[in-house]
Amino acid sequence: MREAYHDQLGELAEQLASMCGMVGDAMELATKALLDTDLAVAERVISDDAKIDDARARTEEDAYSLLALQAPVATDLRTVLSVIHAAESIERMGDLALHVAKAARRRHPQPVLPEAVRGYFAEMGRIAVDLARKAEQVIRTQDIDLARVLDDEDDAMDDLHRHLFSVIMAKDWEHGVPAAVDITLLGRFYERFGDHAVSVAKRTVFVVTGKMPGYSSDATDL
Amino acid sequence: MREAYHDQLGELAEQLASMCGMVGDAMELATKALLDTDLAVAERVISDDAKIDDARARTEEDAYSLLALQAPVATDLRTVLSVIHAAESIERMGDLALHVAKAARRRHPQPVLPEAVRGYFAEMGRIAVDLARKAEQVIRTQDIDLARVLDDEDDAMDDLHRHLFSVIMAKDWEHGVPAAVDITLLGRFYERFGDHAVSVAKRTVFVVTGKMPGYSSDATDL
Repeated sequence: MREAYHDQLGELAEQLASMCGMVGDAMELATKALLDTDLAVAERVISDDAKIDDARARTEEDAYSLLALQAPVATDLRTVLSVIHAAESIERMGDLALHVAKAARRRHPQPVLPEAVRGYFAEMGRIAVDLARKAEQVIRTQDIDLARVLDDEDDAMDDLHRHLFSVIMAKDWEHGVPAAVDITLLGRFYERFGDHAVSVAKRTVFVVTGKMPGYSSDATDL
Repeated sequence: MREAYHDQLGELAEQLASMCGMVGDAMELATKALLDTDLAVAERVISDDAKIDDARARTEEDAYSLLALQAPVATDLRTVLSVIHAAESIERMGDLALHVAKAARRRHPQPVLPEAVRGYFAEMGRIAVDLARKAEQVIRTQDIDLARVLDDEDDAMDDLHRHLFSVIMAKDWEHGVPAAVDITLLGRFYERFGDHAVSVAKRTVFVVTGKMPGYSSDATDL
């Protein structure tokens, strides 16, 4: 019984890690679609989102089965509940990549981003993908030091996000309101993606240590 | 045992309903702070957010205890897991009200909203508060027809949100980029608040009927 439980728990962790891989790929492609004004890549992200939703539904079902069949208590119970929460966060990361891809599709063949902010999104995209990959690694290795690195990287994302606002709010912004509106929402999508990756890593730390790390996500002031 | 279980489940539902009341109040006050440029009201929402977070932590702990002590299976298990998911959504609604209040505080004593969009936010605020109140009622009464009304009202919110974008993106927009950026994010906060309220009501329908209603949230295209 205990062994079956631990096998099943290991499988759940593997499913979560694989979901992180999927949303990392989705954000990588969505960012490429955004930067290269590539409609085919945007369409691929949009049609692949259903696979992420399916993976989440499967993970949640498996977690429910484990709860129903093994009725874990104490730490084991919290572990399974953490999987359910993390699966929800990772699906949300997929939705945010989807929103980025949809923005690229909506403005096509026009680029969404003026040259002045391309560098910001290239870098926020790089960090977002890296955060998803690192969250995947944290789940696989249960390396709690790596979870802390994730939090620092997310701070870098938040800094970029703040700078981005100062660029579009500056008096010499010459690309008009519609571009600024697109950029505002896109910036928010990357920033939230990072927050969710940190929250997934935190849940893993909680499973390993029994304590929820105190650092906060969505600390953004608008 | 069964009776204790049902008492505890009833208490959990009561805690969820009360959390809906709290976030409805928070969004009502945050909207007032935004429309009236009222710093004291904004500060109150900001300081009261911790109470919502505490209520969520308590609800989640109580749900964990119930799982550990009663080890429910089948429908009962899904009910308790729905409570855990709903509590997360409601806490997030509180965060979104907090973001609105922070926007009002940040621009004080300047108003955040130009006259041209005040009406939109008055109406989106009214709908948001009503959605929270109705979600509270759905949890208390398990009225699945009311849950459907909630979904229709959220469509009205999405329409307002889309119109709002057409106002700020219009060629004759004369309030500049910084106001447009604030309005873009604020619009998103109200729209997400509505999505979460619908998702809370859906979870209740799921508990009552055993089926998750198919209508979708966050259908927003950017």
